[in-house]
Amino acid sequence: MEVSRHGDRHDLRDLTVGIRFEGDYDDAYSEGDNSGVLPTDTMKNTIYALAARHLGAEPEALGLELSRHFLARNPRLHRVHIGLTEHLWGRIPTGERQHGQAFLRQGPEIRLAAITAERDRTIVEAGVADLVILKSSRSAFAGFLHDEFTTLLETGDRILATSLSATWRYADLDVEFGTAWRAVRRTLLESFAAHDSRSVQHTLHAMGQAVLDNVIFVDSIHLVMPNRHHLPVDLSVFGLENRNEIFVATDEPHGLIEATMVR
Amino acid sequence: MEVSRHGDRHDLRDLTVGIRFEGDYDDAYSEGDNSGVLPTDTMKNTIYALAARHLGAEPEALGLELSRHFLARNPRLHRVHIGLTEHLWGRIPTGERQHGQAFLRQGPEIRLAAITAERDRTIVEAGVADLVILKSSRSAFAGFLHDEFTTLLETGDRILATSLSATWRYADLDVEFGTAWRAVRRTLLESFAAHDSRSVQHTLHAMGQAVLDNVIFVDSIHLVMPNRHHLPVDLSVFGLENRNEIFVATDEPHGLIEATMVR
Amino acid sequence: MEVSRHGDRHDLRDLTVGIRFEGDYDDAYSEGDNSGVLPTDTMKNTIYALAARHLGAEPEALGLELSRHFLARNPRLHRVHIGLTEHLWGRIPTGERQHGQAFLRQGPEIRLAAITAERDRTIVEAGVADLVILKSSRSAFAGFLHDEFTTLLETGDRILATSLSATWRYADLDVEFGTAWRAVRRTLLESFAAHDSRSVQHTLHAMGQAVLDNVIFVDSIHLVMPNRHHLPVDLSVFGLENRNEIFVATDEPHGLIEATMVR
Amino acid sequence: MEVSRHGDRHDLRDLTVGIRFEGDYDDAYSEGDNSGVLPTDTMKNTIYALAARHLGAEPEALGLELSRHFLARNPRLHRVHIGLTEHLWGRIPTGERQHGQAFLRQGPEIRLAAITAERDRTIVEAGVADLVILKSSRSAFAGFLHDEFTTLLETGDRILATSLSATWRYADLDVEFGTAWRAVRRTLLESFAAHDSRSVQHTLHAMGQAVLDNVIFVDSIHLVMPNRHHLPVDLSVFGLENRNEIFVATDEPHGLIEATMVR
Repeated sequence: MEVSRHGDRHDLRDLTVGIRFEGDYDDAYSEGDNSGVLPTDTMKNTIYALAARHLGAEPEALGLELSRHFLARNPRLHRVHIGLTEHLWGRIPTGERQHGQAFLRQGPEIRLAAITAERDRTIVEAGVADLVILKSSRSAFAGFLHDEFTTLLETGDRILATSLSATWRYADLDVEFGTAWRAVRRTLLESFAAHDSRSVQHTLHAMGQAVLDNVIFVDSIHLVMPNRHHLPVDLSVFGLENRNEIFVATDEPHGLIEATMVR
Repeated sequence: MEVSRHGDRHDLRDLTVGIRFEGDYDDAYSEGDNSGVLPTDTMKNTIYALAARHLGAEPEALGLELSRHFLARNPRLHRVHIGLTEHLWGRIPTGERQHGQAFLRQGPEIRLAAITAERDRTIVEAGVADLVILKSSRSAFAGFLHDEFTTLLETGDRILATSLSATWRYADLDVEFGTAWRAVRRTLLESFAAHDSRSVQHTLHAMGQAVLDNVIFVDSIHLVMPNRHHLPVDLSVFGLENRNEIFVATDEPHGLIEATMVR
Repeated sequence: MEVSRHGDRHDLRDLTVGIRFEGDYDDAYSEGDNSGVLPTDTMKNTIYALAARHLGAEPEALGLELSRHFLARNPRLHRVHIGLTEHLWGRIPTGERQHGQAFLRQGPEIRLAAITAERDRTIVEAGVADLVILKSSRSAFAGFLHDEFTTLLETGDRILATSLSATWRYADLDVEFGTAWRAVRRTLLESFAAHDSRSVQHTLHAMGQAVLDNVIFVDSIHLVMPNRHHLPVDLSVFGLENRNEIFVATDEPHGLIEATMVR
Repeated sequence: MEVSRHGDRHDLRDLTVGIRFEGDYDDAYSEGDNSGVLPTDTMKNTIYALAARHLGAEPEALGLELSRHFLARNPRLHRVHIGLTEHLWGRIPTGERQHGQAFLRQGPEIRLAAITAERDRTIVEAGVADLVILKSSRSAFAGFLHDEFTTLLETGDRILATSLSATWRYADLDVEFGTAWRAVRRTLLESFAAHDSRSVQHTLHAMGQAVLDNVIFVDSIHLVMPNRHHLPVDLSVFGLENRNEIFVATDEPHGLIEATMVR
């Protein structure tokens, strides 16, 4: 947790960082030769130290600093992957204004960033996860394949709900990461809301296409959308009508739809 | 999940309901006599049916309907407890406006309601849980008891973070439950933000007192505040100074402070 | 985690400990006066120190030492509750024997112990939780109450499955805690296996009665048994017969049955 | 959940199944054309029906049947992946014998199987996950890389604990899957127990090597071993000595070691 103090106004940056090394470490495994092994504990210390030097930096920028640091000091390292999860906080409103030093966790959504760096190239990805969204109209599922085990009924008006995970790749490293992240997120939400959905696959594709169409510095995007089923409850056995108003949210089984779209 | 449809504008009410019966059920246990036992499956059906009849009702109001229903039909029932959890949703913004039929889950915070009804009295409680809040200033912890196992240092400026759970009891049943819930929640947040904290206990008390002072129809309030420690990282071993900027959030061990305050 | 070393044979004791203080702490809440407050951090240190002094002790015995320690040093303390969870480990078998220094976690079951001590009395409880058990025969559910929302069918042969939690109170402090715990656990399992069940309530009662009948130093027992439904799948729509062989395990909704039985 | 009934002796097979389709489904995404889409609901029904037809089959065998079924009926399908998780149950002991119809969940360990089938080739993998194991001797970590952020001390005698996940690939489909699974599991446990460990990497390699050496029908194996740190508690501040007996198990940060070994 980073706290940047600007007089009465503090800013938080709440990050969880994962680091993965791949390289010439065969001797560590086969011989128990630790001479090239950087301990987890040192990685942890490095994160604290670099976070202090780059206080308040965007997750992607901190990840880039970490990747350069590790490549410079570890000759056996071929590829380093830095995965950063940002837990989001808003400010507590007090009267008309937002408090400068009191915060409220936003969620369940989290912000993701990932750096994959080798000696001659670096990839920057950003993302969201656990963005739980729901459409109560303009969603159908019909015309699907039938076989001897089909029992599902076709529907022209169902709830579409998902917990969106999306990661996208930037075309270069020279992006305003915070601005870009907000633009992609807004595009995903707006295209989800506006779409006339024939299936989760159909809406997923429309969302990815909207990002590629509208956010020029995104090269490719991967979307994962579990189908969080909301089944209409049969009230007719009690002499009641369900006018598409009462649903049971089920957890399992569920479909999990994913795709990667490349410009 | 309830969907109320008002033309282009839909409203969601996303509830999980738990029901507890206490009464004259000894024969069910000792003899296996099920003649007075209402199956879980019937309770589930009842929730769907009453939710349909009272579409979009506040959780407390639905709970009251359920409690009356079960007391009327189950002569052996002495006390019924209805616990309702509301999962909160906002609208997806599209351009200048909020979309009428597309939603975004808010959280991690949840809204709670509970009805405890006997034949001659009914108690209505409301609450919040998983409201994760943090103060980056005006929080100290010093002057505490010392013994032979004390190692903790005193501090005049620490991060105070918690995941607040609070439940409060209404003085009567004739309350506008939605308005009341928002008033208590706002008072809890504002008093947390404003307090000069000497400890979690001290801030918990100030928050409970603010609710009793400001929200007249609340009779009592119970608050639970785990101390989500954020420990300053010692960077001096790397030749760096930590100006109260870099913290590690720890999970265990943690303190768990609670109290009930009665008007 | 305690490791007791007896030559080639080591023993593990893997505990999580929770401590709750109740007492004359009003000033801490209302005034922020910390002079009587024992920090969480000191409680943690105390557990490590007393565990070292009483290496390998049964959880109940360590809890008693902790309760005495805290009551002796904290004059404002009226009641201290020590809750201990033991995570269970077995030995890794190698050839014919059990390895002395290599272990395998058992579970999901956990062992519980709890001490509630005041200045003039002490209560010792023990328990199990997450003991997941299932009967594939001799379990029925029929003859239950019917109303306008009943849809459940009666059954004479269903799967009965639960995740048992049970806590029991010892009549005095002079019990061989390990031996007693194993005796109660064995009695619970054997009575569950042997019972002709008319309902979860009925089996719960039989299990509690068996403990009171067979384990003389148990004064009372509290049992909690969620009904983990396993519903037969309707295969007739595919032209197949389900001879009570294929079930779907559902999570929600489920019944949760509990009772306290006192000698 | 499958229950096979052989007179007084029942057998359980408790499976969770995941199915993944990859193929020529572009139109479903881009056009909302569902004519080739097999609904999740139909996949679910298919699992129940094939489980009934192959009651009690090993997970790998059921997976093979499912993969053949889906490839035969879905011309657009290029590759189907069937992932099966088996939750393990033992029998409740009653007196001298094991009860035929009463069961106790084993765990936390789970058994894994996975089929990846295309039209001209099929891969069968098996595995374990959540196998939590610990060595209290013959484990060191020393001689590692030092840099400006190193604070970790070298140690010649530490606890080594992990939650093992391992998946291995069979050389052909003609394997007795239950026997093979038990042989690999036993080899993993015995090699873990016996190894003189210089690091998690070193022990992971020894375990994988033991499987390749001893179980001839395994072609390759992938192992994942998080380092579940158990840190010795410094009791010297309280005037006590910690003779490598009292440890605190920490959750984060932790190392996560993995490797794939091919014959």
